Amino acid sequence: MNRQALPAAELIVSDWLNTSTPIALAEQRGKVIVIEAFQMLCPGCVSQGLPQAQRIAETFSAADVLVIGLHSVFEHHEAQGTRAALTAFLHEYRINFPVAIDAPSTDGRIPQTMAAYQLRGTPSLILIDREGQCREQHFGSVSDMALGAQIMQLVGEASSSHSKPTSMVHESTGCDDHGCPVDQGEQT
Amino acid sequence: MNRQALPAAELIVSDWLNTSTPIALAEQRGKVIVIEAFQMLCPGCVSQGLPQAQRIAETFSAADVLVIGLHSVFEHHEAQGTRAALTAFLHEYRINFPVAIDAPSTDGRIPQTMAAYQLRGTPSLILIDREGQCREQHFGSVSDMALGAQIMQLVGEASSSHSKPTSMVHESTGCDDHGCPVDQGEQT
Amino acid sequence: MNRQALPAAELIVSDWLNTSTPIALAEQRGKVIVIEAFQMLCPGCVSQGLPQAQRIAETFSAADVLVIGLHSVFEHHEAQGTRAALTAFLHEYRINFPVAIDAPSTDGRIPQTMAAYQLRGTPSLILIDREGQCREQHFGSVSDMALGAQIMQLVGEASSSHSKPTSMVHESTGCDDHGCPVDQGEQT
Amino acid sequence: MNRQALPAAELIVSDWLNTSTPIALAEQRGKVIVIEAFQMLCPGCVSQGLPQAQRIAETFSAADVLVIGLHSVFEHHEAQGTRAALTAFLHEYRINFPVAIDAPSTDGRIPQTMAAYQLRGTPSLILIDREGQCREQHFGSVSDMALGAQIMQLVGEASSSHSKPTSMVHESTGCDDHGCPVDQGEQT
Repeated sequence: MNRQALPAAELIVSDWLNTSTPIALAEQRGKVIVIEAFQMLCPGCVSQGLPQAQRIAETFSAADVLVIGLHSVFEHHEAQGTRAALTAFLHEYRINFPVAIDAPSTDGRIPQTMAAYQLRGTPSLILIDREGQCREQHFGSVSDMALGAQIMQLVGEASSSHSKPTSMVHESTGCDDHGCPVDQGEQT
Repeated sequence: MNRQALPAAELIVSDWLNTSTPIALAEQRGKVIVIEAFQMLCPGCVSQGLPQAQRIAETFSAADVLVIGLHSVFEHHEAQGTRAALTAFLHEYRINFPVAIDAPSTDGRIPQTMAAYQLRGTPSLILIDREGQCREQHFGSVSDMALGAQIMQLVGEASSSHSKPTSMVHESTGCDDHGCPVDQGEQT
Repeated sequence: MNRQALPAAELIVSDWLNTSTPIALAEQRGKVIVIEAFQMLCPGCVSQGLPQAQRIAETFSAADVLVIGLHSVFEHHEAQGTRAALTAFLHEYRINFPVAIDAPSTDGRIPQTMAAYQLRGTPSLILIDREGQCREQHFGSVSDMALGAQIMQLVGEASSSHSKPTSMVHESTGCDDHGCPVDQGEQT
Repeated sequence: MNRQALPAAELIVSDWLNTSTPIALAEQRGKVIVIEAFQMLCPGCVSQGLPQAQRIAETFSAADVLVIGLHSVFEHHEAQGTRAALTAFLHEYRINFPVAIDAPSTDGRIPQTMAAYQLRGTPSLILIDREGQCREQHFGSVSDMALGAQIMQLVGEASSSHSKPTSMVHESTGCDDHGCPVDQGEQT
């Protein structure tokens, strides 16, 4: 990751969903922040970006990592630009983390946060470290393994509160698709 | 991860493939070591464990993380117990990291390294830190994201040589399955 | 399949997309008709039903099988009930077959075609034979293999114009994920 | 499919598994026969060809369609050429249909049935109609939908005993990944 990081710009938001109060990045110092920029009618966001963001939220402790969705509509405004449409989408796709609606630009094209971060499209993923520095931006797909490692690197930079990722180990009692356990009679 | 770690037992090996010289764990101090215990006729190893081990080798720097396969045959010895069978398997599945053949037990059942580590079956994954302590064992499947994070945690414990995971970002020029880039005319 | 079939009710449609002229089922006698009922914010439709309908259109000859989408909105009307929203969706998901917008019911809930066919939800798939009889309805997922067989059974009922499904054979020249070709020197 | 079909050559087999008696193709007149030629160490066979053959056996009635595996070893004979190795493989991958071991050639390379059918490699799939004519050969991957249709075409050629493919419909009671059912209160 680029160590010459820049302070992450504050989100410019017209509305929030899945949170009772707006979230200011500046008040989240001490946490790693993952921002998933998406559009509800972007196929790559639906099939890849948003499920990955959900896996991040499930894998890391909420005490260490905050996942935020950013609905940055830059096309099809009439179809995906309303709070009602986004609310229905989040409900159907069972997305529970806070989602910000990126404030529309004055010229009706690139919304304001998307422009401030110079995002190249959706899905984009922004990683912000515990000190509020923007450390990484991905456009398009990135592997879960590389992303898990990058987030853990940021989590590990604060010596005081290491995160212990949840070990999602499948416990098997027979030889199935996941593996072959030793029979009780075999291990002596 | 368990901080009350134990020194990792040395591998007890009857033969090595994909390496010109045997590997002693004790000589790898300073590296994180990932051991993937498998059997060539274990479906979960073929479909999940081994591809994941290959992704580990591709994601992390070889200077930081060493991936070793461990062929721990505890059933179907006649079918998968020969060097010739394993050689053919590694060739067909294009597995390039070093693979140790776990030394058969004297009673013909659980091989010796598998018994020493008290592995519950295959696939199993063992994580050893830079100081040679066994820090984690997984039996069955574990998510790429959690595993990437765990390995990165171990990589990060040595302050001198941080690993930079390869960012495998898909660079897209049109709106495709991976995402929707901003058209050049849109971002002003 | 149920041989006591009923004549398929005509679609009750408020608008059409991806076709220059409305489609009357009665004018399609001689073709097998596959109707994919969906909602654009239904996850199972997006991930399963619609891609399967596209595979049907790609596998069978257009001379034998007509695939029609039916947008039957029964929830989230404000988010997915407009022609603009559906147009954007079809564009982003690259769905090219004709799509009918199911006529809203007078009470604002179950649209009229969906009610006439007593569909249980979305995605649903309706198979109509060459004589205009409704022969099968599926709610939820059905395997490609069973569905390919069912459609072919209907195609085969007309003796005059058998369809030859496109053989989408992957032609490989080396031993790859798809298979192991015989080396030229091996087959003598 | 090619209507100028040839009579299918009899299998030349050194041994059978998963059947108490050898199978002669000539004695199966009246059934469609699907032969899946594979090697146990062929990755494309393990990940694609054999699971597809199992889906064929599950989708079509055994009264109409007979699925036979053909282990045609043309490389790595020492690793995959024994009955013991194949027995272990079939057990671990839970393959239940009859499997023939293709008779080795006298020169130790292409086995005899593979040579007789001029198969290009593994996996290969051979379709034989109810009258014993070889109607289609696929090398590499073919889609489930096209294959289901091709098999059904052959099944349908005999007027006396039509097959009814099992409708593997997922029955859902809530809005889940598979679909959105109409609430009981909605459909009036």
